[in-house]
Amino acid sequence: MKVGFIGLGRMGQAMSARVLASGHDLIVYNRTAGKASEIEKAGARVARSLADACEAREVVISMVADDAALKEITLSRGGLRDSLPDACIHLAMGTHSVGVIQAMAAAHNQSQQTLVAAPVLGRPDAAAAGQLGVVAAGPPDAVQRCEPLFQAIGRRTFQAGAKPEGAAAIKLSNGFVLGCAIEAMGEAFSLIRKYGVAPQVLYEVMTDGLFAAPAYKVYGKIIVDESYDKVGFTTMLGLKDVNLALAAAEQARVPMPSGGVYRDRLLGAIAHGDADKDWAVMAREQARASGLD
Amino acid sequence: MKVGFIGLGRMGQAMSARVLASGHDLIVYNRTAGKASEIEKAGARVARSLADACEAREVVISMVADDAALKEITLSRGGLRDSLPDACIHLAMGTHSVGVIQAMAAAHNQSQQTLVAAPVLGRPDAAAAGQLGVVAAGPPDAVQRCEPLFQAIGRRTFQAGAKPEGAAAIKLSNGFVLGCAIEAMGEAFSLIRKYGVAPQVLYEVMTDGLFAAPAYKVYGKIIVDESYDKVGFTTMLGLKDVNLALAAAEQARVPMPSGGVYRDRLLGAIAHGDADKDWAVMAREQARASGLD
Amino acid sequence: MKVGFIGLGRMGQAMSARVLASGHDLIVYNRTAGKASEIEKAGARVARSLADACEAREVVISMVADDAALKEITLSRGGLRDSLPDACIHLAMGTHSVGVIQAMAAAHNQSQQTLVAAPVLGRPDAAAAGQLGVVAAGPPDAVQRCEPLFQAIGRRTFQAGAKPEGAAAIKLSNGFVLGCAIEAMGEAFSLIRKYGVAPQVLYEVMTDGLFAAPAYKVYGKIIVDESYDKVGFTTMLGLKDVNLALAAAEQARVPMPSGGVYRDRLLGAIAHGDADKDWAVMAREQARASGLD
Amino acid sequence: MKVGFIGLGRMGQAMSARVLASGHDLIVYNRTAGKASEIEKAGARVARSLADACEAREVVISMVADDAALKEITLSRGGLRDSLPDACIHLAMGTHSVGVIQAMAAAHNQSQQTLVAAPVLGRPDAAAAGQLGVVAAGPPDAVQRCEPLFQAIGRRTFQAGAKPEGAAAIKLSNGFVLGCAIEAMGEAFSLIRKYGVAPQVLYEVMTDGLFAAPAYKVYGKIIVDESYDKVGFTTMLGLKDVNLALAAAEQARVPMPSGGVYRDRLLGAIAHGDADKDWAVMAREQARASGLD
Repeated sequence: MKVGFIGLGRMGQAMSARVLASGHDLIVYNRTAGKASEIEKAGARVARSLADACEAREVVISMVADDAALKEITLSRGGLRDSLPDACIHLAMGTHSVGVIQAMAAAHNQSQQTLVAAPVLGRPDAAAAGQLGVVAAGPPDAVQRCEPLFQAIGRRTFQAGAKPEGAAAIKLSNGFVLGCAIEAMGEAFSLIRKYGVAPQVLYEVMTDGLFAAPAYKVYGKIIVDESYDKVGFTTMLGLKDVNLALAAAEQARVPMPSGGVYRDRLLGAIAHGDADKDWAVMAREQARASGLD
Repeated sequence: MKVGFIGLGRMGQAMSARVLASGHDLIVYNRTAGKASEIEKAGARVARSLADACEAREVVISMVADDAALKEITLSRGGLRDSLPDACIHLAMGTHSVGVIQAMAAAHNQSQQTLVAAPVLGRPDAAAAGQLGVVAAGPPDAVQRCEPLFQAIGRRTFQAGAKPEGAAAIKLSNGFVLGCAIEAMGEAFSLIRKYGVAPQVLYEVMTDGLFAAPAYKVYGKIIVDESYDKVGFTTMLGLKDVNLALAAAEQARVPMPSGGVYRDRLLGAIAHGDADKDWAVMAREQARASGLD
Repeated sequence: MKVGFIGLGRMGQAMSARVLASGHDLIVYNRTAGKASEIEKAGARVARSLADACEAREVVISMVADDAALKEITLSRGGLRDSLPDACIHLAMGTHSVGVIQAMAAAHNQSQQTLVAAPVLGRPDAAAAGQLGVVAAGPPDAVQRCEPLFQAIGRRTFQAGAKPEGAAAIKLSNGFVLGCAIEAMGEAFSLIRKYGVAPQVLYEVMTDGLFAAPAYKVYGKIIVDESYDKVGFTTMLGLKDVNLALAAAEQARVPMPSGGVYRDRLLGAIAHGDADKDWAVMAREQARASGLD
Repeated sequence: MKVGFIGLGRMGQAMSARVLASGHDLIVYNRTAGKASEIEKAGARVARSLADACEAREVVISMVADDAALKEITLSRGGLRDSLPDACIHLAMGTHSVGVIQAMAAAHNQSQQTLVAAPVLGRPDAAAAGQLGVVAAGPPDAVQRCEPLFQAIGRRTFQAGAKPEGAAAIKLSNGFVLGCAIEAMGEAFSLIRKYGVAPQVLYEVMTDGLFAAPAYKVYGKIIVDESYDKVGFTTMLGLKDVNLALAAAEQARVPMPSGGVYRDRLLGAIAHGDADKDWAVMAREQARASGLD
């Protein structure tokens, strides 16, 4: 396929490399130029503008950092809405708010264009290995046309229905459940520490049984080791994502009290100087609130 | 070993059968007599009183329903404190409050007796198969003496330290983390339903990745199927357990806001008539609170 | 009237003095004897036992510290249930749980006796001045017979219906609303401090307008002055009362999330060493949680 | 003084009438023209544009509905930043976010202009009677220059310091404490209803004592009467304001869990169709959550 790819952060570089390696014709674009050198060596062309990156494409993938960037590349003069060829799909693979996905979908629709949302699950190493999960939603025929790209990038595609914002809701929900799990662990670890039990014991009980899954193994271990300085995902990003989840919930009129609890925990951690730690530092903030640290 | 076993509910029957099958000399006792017929046929003796069940025993296991029952069998006239032979261990395997375990340990200590707490993880079918997890805590030599019994009953023993209440704290914490996970799922499922996504999609995303563990597979499926009438663990029992966790937390001065959230959810479910459903019905109560049902 | 009075703590002394001064025939009883000397000088007789304090009485008032004490004086051998003359009313004026009031009412009913619950609003100085509020509930004719005593003790009587536990629910609710107000102030004061505004400004805005009432004037001032060492009501008593409110709510199946929030705040304060401060110290705990102290 | 006034909603009409009646030279502007007819008859001039309303003014007051409107009148071409004469003050009297007040202050500063924030406390009838509270913050000399206008409009001015956003924080905090009070009442009223006590009893107990203030008298009465259709302030506006408070708290890193609780209550009310009721309808949503309705 003829593919454009916008946004060459760590995830974007890994994902675009997979697209290229799968034999697609690829033009890439990044706001700052240096990021493209590696993929260029591998054989991709580098666009000088958003409009260039859209020229004669069948699908243009965006993988940008936040809602502001997505609005910018979509709505600015010369952006995707102005530049996409007829029948070309904008495939938005970043993590975005439900609201901005709805707004971008509406903007494209007004221009007889199509938005497919397909946020991904996994980190850069999974992306490089083509092992991401892909949550795809949008008009069924458009989603289907993107299938070769999902196969290039991911291990499995989850079909989240005909409305693009549905994929955003799934992605945010998965992260929300994770935030709740970290908060719950933080509370439980504080409790058993107060009774003089080694954190490792609770870790083993959990991960041996009901909670034998990456969420608890990975984050439980960070908590047991107090290795908050080895950062996979920062407290600030955790705050950004829970805000996206709570905004989606507000729009849909869903009270999500567990979200309020862990958002407050993140704020407390940031107030105590842990903004740039791994967000598992919620457990240390809980310990602090319990008079433990 | 010479073993007494008190409490022949569903778990007690399965566990005592494992003890007998492992070749130990077993006397059983249950407040109401009929429950002992099966284990009697299998070769156990049936005691007529608590005192009988203690006679010449090395370990007396209790597996009773709640704190009140544990206090009753331990402290009443002719109970374990009065009747345990010298050097005999009271091995308490039920789920009890931190406070009552501390109190029973102190009562036994005053009589130069020893309490080991060893609550179990798993349901009756796991008990029958000898596949329970055992969380053991108490004086190390006493815990060690109980080891053959843990091997008869369980798949794996977790050592939770020298204070019996530490085992109670671990057991309650594990259940607490589960309650939080169910609540988090409930909130997330309501959110994605509002965006028109089928619950099954979120279920697959979760259990394919970060949450590929029994807690999410079992309870997520109940939520997706809305099969709250097939009851594994009732809302009322969930309320009892979260109250035990919050009481342990109060005693240790640990604020556990996630516990407050799911306790409130359970109360709401009970207020709406779901006291006897499986406690995953929290998700339906959340849907109700979101205007979905 | 012929009145017995049980419990001569600070409130009990002030209240019994009002009863005596209103011309009633008074016998008092306290578990420890010394407390009765002042009221004895003023003309009351001092009973040697609970049974003595009940002899030939029309009403026996109890004003004891907690549920355990109320159960003790009511149910113990020789206690009120054993000793009240026919048609004599047990008028319970302490702050008690809904559950124990129900249980004591049932116990008295079985003995053809009557319980009226009439917890009071106000501190010892208000009691000494006959300025308490009285919240009375029980069988209407019994409540009416107690009216002269309410007039002796209080400024105003609130009729809370025919079920004694209704008065307990009102008393606990009033205290609950106060706890929520203190928590809300704590959060708001932390917020404006972070924006560099003097706490006094918020205090004046609140108490000049929407919140021109004792709850905000008294507790707002303690917070502004950080005078938590001048203790009116301790953090530990605040914890006891919110637990009573939450227990009443559990029994009635009412989720009260604001109670969970301020209970957690109290626990945090206690964890940080503020158990014996005035419970307005919740505001300092909030400041701590915000990285302010 | 030479005064411009922008925004003639209900509050703006009443406030501008006070300014005019105090003898100031007044030009008014409203985006839609019809709103100005009354004040014009009273002697004010009507501007055709924002620029007109700024011409030769000493102070330009804005009283607009939300942050978007404030940004529009300040930053748009020909807006206040472009049009204010040297040394003229922009006096922003609406309820705005801390963030937008900071941003507008910075924008004006870059143009050597001054922003004073002075949100008001009270409803249109209080405005018409000159009985508003005014919370003023900004550079001290600028605040002082506005004093004659505060006296024209308000009953009392609260000085909230040198940073304009401090006034916003105070205004939002006052509203926040009110939201918490309504939520607390809602929970308490549900509790006592479950015990069969008439709501009026709790209302009288509260407002006779600790809570003898408008917040409880006004909103308590609405709850007792269930008169949610007589709308003073809608659920949707309550949601907007708690979001402003929580955004201010996030920016300052202050966890405010009580805000999360009542925000969730508002969302629940909206989910059940009560978006346009008075926000005291939180109490009905609480009753619903308790199985009462």
